[in-house]
Amino acid sequence: MSLAFVLLLGCWIQSAATQQQKPNFIIMLMDDMGWGDLGVFGEPSKETPNLDRMASQGMLLPDFYSANPICSPSRASLLSGRLPIRNGFYTTNAHAHDSYTPQDIVGGIPDTEILLPEVLQKLGYRSKIIGKWHLGQQPQYHPLMHGFDEWFGAPNCHFGPFDDKTQPNIPVFRDADMIGRYYEDYLIDKKTGESNLTQIFIQEALTFIEQQANKKPFFLYWAVDATHEPVYASTKFLGKSQRGRYGDAVQELDYGVGQILQKVNELGIANDTLVIFSSDNGGATYAKEMGGNNGPFLCGKQTTFEGGVREPTIAYMPGRIPAGVVSHQLGSLMDLYTTFITLAGGKIPTDRIVDGIDLSPSLFKHAVQERPIFYYRGNELMAVRLRQYKAHFWTWTNGLDEFNKGINFCPGEEIEGVTTHEQMNHTAEPLLFHLGRDPGEKYIIKPSSPEYKQVIQEIMMIADDHRKKLVPGVPQLNMCDESVMNWAPPGCHKIERCLQGPKSKPYKCFWPH
Amino acid sequence: MSLAFVLLLGCWIQSAATQQQKPNFIIMLMDDMGWGDLGVFGEPSKETPNLDRMASQGMLLPDFYSANPICSPSRASLLSGRLPIRNGFYTTNAHAHDSYTPQDIVGGIPDTEILLPEVLQKLGYRSKIIGKWHLGQQPQYHPLMHGFDEWFGAPNCHFGPFDDKTQPNIPVFRDADMIGRYYEDYLIDKKTGESNLTQIFIQEALTFIEQQANKKPFFLYWAVDATHEPVYASTKFLGKSQRGRYGDAVQELDYGVGQILQKVNELGIANDTLVIFSSDNGGATYAKEMGGNNGPFLCGKQTTFEGGVREPTIAYMPGRIPAGVVSHQLGSLMDLYTTFITLAGGKIPTDRIVDGIDLSPSLFKHAVQERPIFYYRGNELMAVRLRQYKAHFWTWTNGLDEFNKGINFCPGEEIEGVTTHEQMNHTAEPLLFHLGRDPGEKYIIKPSSPEYKQVIQEIMMIADDHRKKLVPGVPQLNMCDESVMNWAPPGCHKIERCLQGPKSKPYKCFWPH
Ligand SMILES: [Ca+2]
Ligand SMILES: [Ca+2]
Repeated sequence: MSLAFVLLLGCWIQSAATQQQKPNFIIMLMDDMGWGDLGVFGEPSKETPNLDRMASQGMLLPDFYSANPICSPSRASLLSGRLPIRNGFYTTNAHAHDSYTPQDIVGGIPDTEILLPEVLQKLGYRSKIIGKWHLGQQPQYHPLMHGFDEWFGAPNCHFGPFDDKTQPNIPVFRDADMIGRYYEDYLIDKKTGESNLTQIFIQEALTFIEQQANKKPFFLYWAVDATHEPVYASTKFLGKSQRGRYGDAVQELDYGVGQILQKVNELGIANDTLVIFSSDNGGATYAKEMGGNNGPFLCGKQTTFEGGVREPTIAYMPGRIPAGVVSHQLGSLMDLYTTFITLAGGKIPTDRIVDGIDLSPSLFKHAVQERPIFYYRGNELMAVRLRQYKAHFWTWTNGLDEFNKGINFCPGEEIEGVTTHEQMNHTAEPLLFHLGRDPGEKYIIKPSSPEYKQVIQEIMMIADDHRKKLVPGVPQLNMCDESVMNWAPPGCHKIERCLQGPKSKPYKCFWPH
Repeated sequence: MSLAFVLLLGCWIQSAATQQQKPNFIIMLMDDMGWGDLGVFGEPSKETPNLDRMASQGMLLPDFYSANPICSPSRASLLSGRLPIRNGFYTTNAHAHDSYTPQDIVGGIPDTEILLPEVLQKLGYRSKIIGKWHLGQQPQYHPLMHGFDEWFGAPNCHFGPFDDKTQPNIPVFRDADMIGRYYEDYLIDKKTGESNLTQIFIQEALTFIEQQANKKPFFLYWAVDATHEPVYASTKFLGKSQRGRYGDAVQELDYGVGQILQKVNELGIANDTLVIFSSDNGGATYAKEMGGNNGPFLCGKQTTFEGGVREPTIAYMPGRIPAGVVSHQLGSLMDLYTTFITLAGGKIPTDRIVDGIDLSPSLFKHAVQERPIFYYRGNELMAVRLRQYKAHFWTWTNGLDEFNKGINFCPGEEIEGVTTHEQMNHTAEPLLFHLGRDPGEKYIIKPSSPEYKQVIQEIMMIADDHRKKLVPGVPQLNMCDESVMNWAPPGCHKIERCLQGPKSKPYKCFWPH
């Protein structure tokens, strides 16, 4: 971040800070968990007693979205309050293709983005991320460079390269330094799914909360990943659920949620702590029985159908948020940016478009603010939701070549003209659905109907306005290079675990979907 | 019923009647409502506050089944405690075809079946059915001939013939006498969906409960039908839900549930009244946006996939059933027969196989009893569930001829080799699914796997034993005859509404599915 910008930032951050007690914030962000994976959202095994209780004591948000159907862009949006197309977490290598941050990615979260912990830090907060970062593994992109004070976790996904020695295993960091690697120091048994990681992540959270309880306000970003393949659970949970290994992982995470809420209550800070539970994208339907359940919604992760982006969301703040209520506010993970900063007494940047809205009226006064939801895949605005209506400008699941290899984002589902394997451009006459009558996006509203004509005009205007005002960020996920992998992460020398990488040889990343 | 049989019946009914307070029973049976139609089962609009509260104060039963995927056989089984193949509510006109009781049906509930209200009557109960009977419209089959003391409602579905004058409109009865007809005296506006019927059914229920509260124990069978097409709601509810007309109907029924529970509580009889909410079959997916939501389950009404027979079930008896618990007991509507009779101090007939089991241990002690679920379609055992495993011996949705006419029981769903349009016989090697890992019946367990080999043997033995002991009832749904229609129902002369029917000309009923 340039100095000029820091000074500018200083101006707006302090100005309207109210002198009230600043609340603590906890985001429990699941990885690839589906909307339908919680008992309270209809999972038939009903194995999430802690989350169901959290909902009965808090607010259920069934119409809550991630900004993107895959990990990295969703997480970049959560922390920047802005769509991936703005914050740079997309690719222009192929139209409307999903992209993320494997360890050969060159890009990462740009310095020009003002992340949530960065703002909170200036407002007096101490922030910790536990788990998966996924906004770039090169040192300049690391959490402590972007406002976090503490980190325990990994820069990339816990999957691959599974100790194959031709590529470095993913490192695990304590703050600025690598302290070990997955499959070497932090074990995940790919075959049995056994790993103690969730237990470690739970303990990290409890310790941080305890340490911060009587100090300055805190922001805990609990980015656990047991429900992302390879799905894992500890011995105590393995084989215990009715849902197989995926369910075991869910049960352990649910247990963790219970532990964290219990800690917050024991410490007497529950009324001052806003806790949000959600997921970064829809259930990975391509993983079949090892993936999440998206309830009545169509398809899953990687797609802009509801199954890809509708997230199981609960807000909890006893005394402030009324117990056991349901809010149909159309919400987004990006809203947490705006909401938290506002509640902390900060101001939202005005030199750029921030997509998140302040959810305080919804959370505390049960109000519903009208706002559209923009569904992006890569560089393309695929769909827009307004109230109960969703218009698809583009439809696509994946290409036939990938599909024929057995990669299916919509297993068992096939809706003619909707779950298309070619990229279909419907911009001239978008496919319109009413998600109230038809949550599964099965029944296209006839373009000749008065309902269509009235609604589509409104949505088209919103989309046009959105496109007109759009200033795309520099795409971060175009270039890959094996030399940028986690060969010698910061701190590796302290534990004598540095590896020698190859020379730089950048290439265009290949994004199949 | 023959005299000899009545005497026999007398013996076992009185024998073990305990002298405890006999509980009241209320069954709220919905029509074509899907498992996923309740907020508590994951309906995204969350528009069933009364049912959700009923669940939070009672027991949720996510693994509860109807005995059949369509109305009449399901209802015959509920009241007889026996599978349709035993009680005669099936057809042999075509293999594995669904059949029911339109008004030209000749058959009905056989006198040899000992219905629940018949047993309860002898145990000192007063029973009322409100709404749809559907066990035969000829006078000898009417509710008051089979143990009910009161009736307000209709013998057949409220649909058709819609006042076309070539066939009689469906009559509405008060006890033994017809008092009017649908579309003439009891209006349903097919176009707008407006009808006051649910309000009438609610009022009937409240009045009956009030009248009985301080008298002898009662059994109320609240068989409302607003969610069966043509879906209807009263003006106060029309257009109010987020789900269109279907949601309006659900909201009005939910309101009714709230009214009934409130009445039971106000009268101080809640602790002595076992209330069961459920549905007669899965959501009618063929009705598209006008049909129910089956949550994560496959297909719907008419099929033996989970969407056809898994029912949204709640049990409520404050003080006896613990609040807010979930029971994974595999349950069946047929179990209500055995459970109610047992709780009333009666004995279950021993001269025949009764399929229902006593659910008391599940309801009151949170026990789980192992038992199989048999999925029938017409005269064929299509599938068996044991614990989490379900084996399909036969698969079929509907024939291609019907499918090509646009009748689709699995809209948007297509699972190769599973949702077949030909009747597929898998008896030699059944298709096995694990409903915990795979509630949507999408992923066939490999026959070569150890898991398959172990489980399938157990299920095959259960199926063989079942088939061996089976004594099929005389099929009631084979013959039709226009002369048996509701031309001149009992009581028609009192209101001068008798019609002249044609001469008897029996023919084989045609069952397309
Ligand atoms: Ca993810
Ligand atoms: Ca029905």
